[in-house]
Parts: sequence; structure tokens; C-alpha cells
Amino acid sequence: MAVAARTMGGMAQMLTEAAPADVRAACRDGAAVPTSGLAPGYTQANLVVLPREWAYDFLLFAQRNPQPVPLLDVTDAGSPRTVLAPDADLRTDLPRYRVWRDGELTDEPTDVTDLWSGDLVAFLIGCSFSFETALLDAGVPVRNIEQGRNVSMFRTDRACRSAGRLSGPLVVTMRPVPGELVTTAVQVTARMPQVHGAPVHVGPPEGLGIADLARPDFGDPVEAHAGDVPVFWACGVTPQAALMASRPPFAITHAPGHMFVTDVPDSVYRLP
Amino acid sequence: MAVAARTMGGMAQMLTEAAPADVRAACRDGAAVPTSGLAPGYTQANLVVLPREWAYDFLLFAQRNPQPVPLLDVTDAGSPRTVLAPDADLRTDLPRYRVWRDGELTDEPTDVTDLWSGDLVAFLIGCSFSFETALLDAGVPVRNIEQGRNVSMFRTDRACRSAGRLSGPLVVTMRPVPGELVTTAVQVTARMPQVHGAPVHVGPPEGLGIADLARPDFGDPVEAHAGDVPVFWACGVTPQAALMASRPPFAITHAPGHMFVTDVPDSVYRLP
Repeated sequence: MAVAARTMGGMAQMLTEAAPADVRAACRDGAAVPTSGLAPGYTQANLVVLPREWAYDFLLFAQRNPQPVPLLDVTDAGSPRTVLAPDADLRTDLPRYRVWRDGELTDEPTDVTDLWSGDLVAFLIGCSFSFETALLDAGVPVRNIEQGRNVSMFRTDRACRSAGRLSGPLVVTMRPVPGELVTTAVQVTARMPQVHGAPVHVGPPEGLGIADLARPDFGDPVEAHAGDVPVFWACGVTPQAALMASRPPFAITHAPGHMFVTDVPDSVYRLP
Repeated sequence: MAVAARTMGGMAQMLTEAAPADVRAACRDGAAVPTSGLAPGYTQANLVVLPREWAYDFLLFAQRNPQPVPLLDVTDAGSPRTVLAPDADLRTDLPRYRVWRDGELTDEPTDVTDLWSGDLVAFLIGCSFSFETALLDAGVPVRNIEQGRNVSMFRTDRACRSAGRLSGPLVVTMRPVPGELVTTAVQVTARMPQVHGAPVHVGPPEGLGIADLARPDFGDPVEAHAGDVPVFWACGVTPQAALMASRPPFAITHAPGHMFVTDVPDSVYRLP
């Protein structure tokens, strides 16, 4: 296990300089590494796969909640192909998947070929990894990256617009931003609506019904520096939370942090 | 008929200064006037109403073709209510509708209450009226408005991404823009992706497979001034054309130029 972990660490290092197709090929060969920092400059995507009978509700939920659920592509039923990476196979090219039955997590495989069927529709959803790169490029520190932690995520008291069987609260990420750089952080992310866009809230967490920033609902606590202000963005966990609460008979998602690496440069999703 | 036309002209004049709710109330009372120029500063929307069984294909077509089909809202099946104007009733509040059966136009009523059912889903789609106002505000002349004509629309040789039973060519509007203002026109409309966004093509119409600008496929010919360049934007006729080609058993749309007037200020759809 320790050997495997070291091998994975070396693999991750090698993939940091790899092209998207190389990362996907390594995943296809079984590399089950988190994708943060891999193939830098290329968009990574959240994956949700559902039976066709649930696809309309999910598509409508996305249309009604574009900040937490920015859809980058939706496949034809049964097809493992996406325009975001024409050579990729969605059944094999993510590092790790989660399999859900009746809303319960039942498995975390590295390949879902055996589970695939002509009835499944895959949704690829924008991810805040894209705007973290843009924040860093603009000189805004990203504390979770500095501290080597997963970003802090919180359920809020804001309800999403419901769609058929899907409803739930808005889930947000929180990043502490130096007060003098909040304007920059807003402007940079506002130009990226397809990867969650501008913050939904800046400042007191009570405004979103969040009791304690030190106790996130998902991810890790992240420490603020003196002068930092908490800034909250819509989060891609929102649709997964709504989906699992409504308990579809079958679903596949990516495993947290183990995203689909696309061929689309992040710049495509930056407005002028 | 001449009296009716004069009355309609007077009505249109009065409504030019009206609030959105007043325009919708007049429509509810039978005013069957085109909505161009009414309730200025408020977003107008295209309407497509389909049986639930066709709604997924249409929603997917919109997701895959956001420039010609920018969805502003989708109703719950059976509901005539939209978040774009909470007090409105989509069955009565447009000035004129079109009713389609098996892809054929069968009626043009001013009220569709009798045709409504719990099975229908309404799609509200952004309209270039919003960006024409923004162009004028930025000093870009809009020749079709100057000439009192409908905008010129053309089928192109570019295919939309198909979705289930829906496929078809991209349809565009063309506006002649003075060469020195093309940059302004691109920048202004690029900031409004929910009302068709930036041009898809500038210059030679052959680049889109258009043979003759004097012979539009829909709308009126519009005369260019010396020094004008043809500028092409994705057009909301695209989804209607795809839909009618695929012949759903039943559909309702707005009548051309007779849009749904929302309570949403145009500024909401302008990015910073």
C-alpha cells in the first residue's frame, strides 16, 4: 500500500506536465490519482451519469441553477463520447468513479465499462479548478492550495430552484481572500460563468446560514490570514447532493477530486 | 380593418411608454400588436411550448446550441407561470400565438387557454431585441430599425449539434454595421450571451453558405450603406426551424415579432 502510494505520487508528478490525453491514458491504465494540478491550463469536469428516465429532471435542474450546475456537455444516451475530448472514453478515462444505487454509495471502481448501458446519459459539469488557476494568475492567493487542503464546502440556507424530483440547498465553496483583492477575485470569476462564475456571497457566513467556518460540511477547514474575508462561490457538489437525496435507482459520478480532464483550454471559458 | 389597424397603431404608441405588466394586460385584453419597441429596457422572449415527451430533446438541443437557443426559463409541465414575470399567464399574455400540428401551422390565436394541458412545457428563449437596444445605446446604427423593416434572416450551411429528434441548420440574422463600429458591435453583444451573444461571422456571406443578402429566407431585405459590413448573429428562428422539421404532434409558439414581454430589465443579461 505504501509502495502503491509512492508510485501514485510519482505518477501524479509525471502527469503534472502531461497533456490531457496522456492523463486520460494513465487513468485508462489504472492510475487512480486526484487530478488537481494535472494538465494545467485545461478544463476539468465533474461527471454525473444517470438513466435516461432521470435525465430530463437533471437537465432542467441545471438550466434552473446555472451557477452551481454549469453544464459543459451532455452525451447522447448510451454514448461514452463527449465533444470536450473527442478521443476520450467516459467509461475508463476518469481516475476513479463512484457508483450509487438508490442513493447509496456502493462502489468506487476505476472503470465502469461493465456498468455502462444504452440507457445512460452523462453530464459534464464545470469545476472550480478552472477559476482557481485564473485567481492565481491574477495574483489572488488560494489558501486551500497554499495549505495543501481540499477546499471547504458548506450547505447553505438558500434553496435551489427545484426541477421535478430534484431539489436541495445551494452548496458553496469558501475561500479566504485578502480584503484588497476581493474586487479582483469577483472580476476574475465573473468572467467564467461556465465554471461557477462570480461569488454568491462575500463576508459574514451567517448571511448564508453557515454557523462555523471551522466546521465545513465537506472538504477540509482552511485557515484565513489576518485581513482575509470569506468569499463564497456556488459549488458542483450541489447537484450531487440534490441527486443523492432523491435516490435515483442508479447513478455514476466521479470520485471527489478525481475529475475528467478535457481537451478544452481554460481560456475558452473566460469571457473577454 | 383600416379602423382596426389605426386602433392598433394608437395602442402600440400608447404601449411604447407602458410598463411590462401593462403591455401584458393589453395583450390579455386582445391587443394583437408586434412588441418591437414596447416596454423599452425590458427583455422580450421567444416562446416554444411542447408536450412533455418532446421537452427533453428540446432542452438538450438548447444546451448544445446556446447561441441560437439561449434559454431564459423553462416552466414546470402544465404551469403557465414563469419566473421572468411572476404575475403573467403564458396562455393569454402574448399578443399572438401560432399553433402547430404535426409541423404544420394550423392557427394564429391571441389566447391559447383552451389548448393548454397539464402535459405542456413552455420554453422562454432570449431575443435579439435586447441587444439591438444595447447596440443603439453604444452608437451602433441598426439599419432594419432605421428602415422600419423586419431584420433579414438566413439559413446557413452550418449544422447545429443535433439532439434526439431535433436537428437543422443554424439560422442567422444579418445587420449591416459601419466598418469602424464592428468592434463595438462585437464587444457590446459579446457581453450578452443570453440574448445570442457575439456575432458568429463578420463579412463575406459565402462564409456561411449565403448566396444573396438581398434575398433573405425570413424577414425583409435591409439596405446597407456605403462602408457597411454584413455582421451575422445566431437567431432564435433556429430552434423553431428544427422543431417544425421534426414535426412534433403539437406545439405552440409566439407569432413572429409578437413576443412575451418580461419583467426582467435588459441590464440583467449584460455582463460587466
